[in-house]
Amino acid sequence: MQPIKLSQLETPCLVLDEAKFERNITRMRAHLDQLGVSLRPHVKTAKSIDVARRVLRPPEASIAVSTLKEAEYFLAHGLNDILYAVGAAPNKLDHITDLRKRGARLTLILDNGDAARAVVARARASADRIPVMIEIDCDGHRSGIVPGDPALLELGSALTDGGCELRGVMTHAGNSYNCGSVAAIRTMAAQERDAVVVAANALRAAGLPCPVVSVGSTPTATYADDLAGVTEVRAGVFVFFDLVMTGLQVCAIDDIAISVLASVIGHQRDKGWIIVDAGWMAMSRDRGTAKQKIDQGYGLVCDALGRPYEDLIVADANQEHGIIALRPGARAGLPDLPLGAQVRILPNHACATGAQHQAYKVVRGDADAISTTWPRIGGW
Amino acid sequence: MQPIKLSQLETPCLVLDEAKFERNITRMRAHLDQLGVSLRPHVKTAKSIDVARRVLRPPEASIAVSTLKEAEYFLAHGLNDILYAVGAAPNKLDHITDLRKRGARLTLILDNGDAARAVVARARASADRIPVMIEIDCDGHRSGIVPGDPALLELGSALTDGGCELRGVMTHAGNSYNCGSVAAIRTMAAQERDAVVVAANALRAAGLPCPVVSVGSTPTATYADDLAGVTEVRAGVFVFFDLVMTGLQVCAIDDIAISVLASVIGHQRDKGWIIVDAGWMAMSRDRGTAKQKIDQGYGLVCDALGRPYEDLIVADANQEHGIIALRPGARAGLPDLPLGAQVRILPNHACATGAQHQAYKVVRGDADAISTTWPRIGGW
Repeated sequence: MQPIKLSQLETPCLVLDEAKFERNITRMRAHLDQLGVSLRPHVKTAKSIDVARRVLRPPEASIAVSTLKEAEYFLAHGLNDILYAVGAAPNKLDHITDLRKRGARLTLILDNGDAARAVVARARASADRIPVMIEIDCDGHRSGIVPGDPALLELGSALTDGGCELRGVMTHAGNSYNCGSVAAIRTMAAQERDAVVVAANALRAAGLPCPVVSVGSTPTATYADDLAGVTEVRAGVFVFFDLVMTGLQVCAIDDIAISVLASVIGHQRDKGWIIVDAGWMAMSRDRGTAKQKIDQGYGLVCDALGRPYEDLIVADANQEHGIIALRPGARAGLPDLPLGAQVRILPNHACATGAQHQAYKVVRGDADAISTTWPRIGGW
Repeated sequence: MQPIKLSQLETPCLVLDEAKFERNITRMRAHLDQLGVSLRPHVKTAKSIDVARRVLRPPEASIAVSTLKEAEYFLAHGLNDILYAVGAAPNKLDHITDLRKRGARLTLILDNGDAARAVVARARASADRIPVMIEIDCDGHRSGIVPGDPALLELGSALTDGGCELRGVMTHAGNSYNCGSVAAIRTMAAQERDAVVVAANALRAAGLPCPVVSVGSTPTATYADDLAGVTEVRAGVFVFFDLVMTGLQVCAIDDIAISVLASVIGHQRDKGWIIVDAGWMAMSRDRGTAKQKIDQGYGLVCDALGRPYEDLIVADANQEHGIIALRPGARAGLPDLPLGAQVRILPNHACATGAQHQAYKVVRGDADAISTTWPRIGGW
């Protein structure tokens, strides 16, 4: 059977460059090996068992998830050491109990007494020593308690006394996405590490267990140079990377492993517009580069083989229409892309763009042939 | 069997208020009846046969779609008069031919000679009189040819001479979404009408057929007061409405029929933040109100029964976390929403938020009970 070629596909679709993807994984794993920490990949970026299997080294089965649907899916595929890295609403406790009964070593996170009381009550009612990590706030980003908060020890005691398994502490340096330089990311990585290490030491000094000390964000994981005291790193977007990460100097354009394949469907020549069939439904509405130094619109345009055009972006988007135009001040001219020509568009945010699609068309480098298709899941 | 209650659902999920939804449909249909035009609902907003069936009056079977996947789905459910309202890339012609062979009265749109040549070649090769409408640009928004462009008659002749069925002209006043007042929308509606009527008359004066004269956008459809010469209106978002439409004065907050049900998972009390389990994955990244007079963040927060809190919005969002906070300058205080409390969040953009979900949980008014679940499709 002839292999299917990109040029034969109906567009838009999501393309995964396997060579770049593998290189990204190899680089991150080597870096974390050198730092002496394990990797718990956050599978919310790819939501694909095929991707997870290439990140994990058997018999590793540790992942972080953002939804119970992900937990269901990855458990069904044999990955059972699952950190649910979003605070659990009480309406999810039945489902959590059910997942644990079916073999998931599902660990919860929480940062407040009400949540601890709900989980303790559930642990008692279900006679299940539910593992819990306490979420630490390292940068004022979103959730968690600051390491010096007396609530830390109260939560730790309440959980252990209440029959839960206190597994440790975790944090997420969400503000690393707003860093203006590599130096700032390095500082943030140290701050992230210090927050959980201080919290872990406080728990241990109080006689409480804290075997796991977990940090995680792709920028800090990339630039951390000392993770003493940390036991695991959670990171997700590094498998694919994206334009936001490029803007943060966390990766090069050439490292971005996913793109949206689109076809030219028209032109507005007097306006310098090329119209393609990838709009915000295919790219997502994510405009994460809008606040960065280089605004990439809804994505950076490459030729059909993945080579970027200079200064050519998706300047605007409707649901199924993308308007390709040169960036203001562009040096190059508009390329000649006739009706039907294909382009690949690099996304601002891999998690958001991936979520708009149901599968990856996998290619290697600039080959036109699709080697395989990997499904992905969505929803809750 | 007891009906399922909203309060029993795992969150986030998409809720459809059937009473508001039906009122929106009744109002639009009455308005278009009064104007003497037919409605071809754009099903890209809801992507649900259950929604489409409530908009159409049997034996009506006319819809507009934005993807061939929608065409497949609605054809399978018996709706066969389908306008594919996005220019067709040549890589989709095989699929289009296949859909037509299976009974879809699928009509294409185009605005350029290359596309016309490709469709004519396909019409000949498949011995199929493919119906085509010429896309007219009424407002410089995106695609189409301006009514006075000599290309109009060239395209019309090329299509009829080449064995296609010239069905008429269509336009979409996309810039109606940028109007600053109701008066401006009324002017835009007249401009949209005039563009297609002028084009239709030019085709007819040249001896070319033009039975269908089609306009469409929810703002212009709502405020048009004279559609003489127009035969059909395409509109989609009016079935649900959203905050962008409210900002345009096209609907009231109370008309918005969909919302995302979310649960409180934490607080940052010193910052005035309530953290919920609906982030941008559930709301979409759409920030369409950011450029309007009232920026609604990622959505306006209502209580569990759908009654809006004053000045309470989703101020920021991560993938599965929403940060609820008061709008700057809010008069009311932060409501007391403990862990596990449910809220409903009204979306900026119904098309974008809907696309993040796989089903609608249908309720009536402020009832807590779910009457039914309607699935929706996504992808390409």
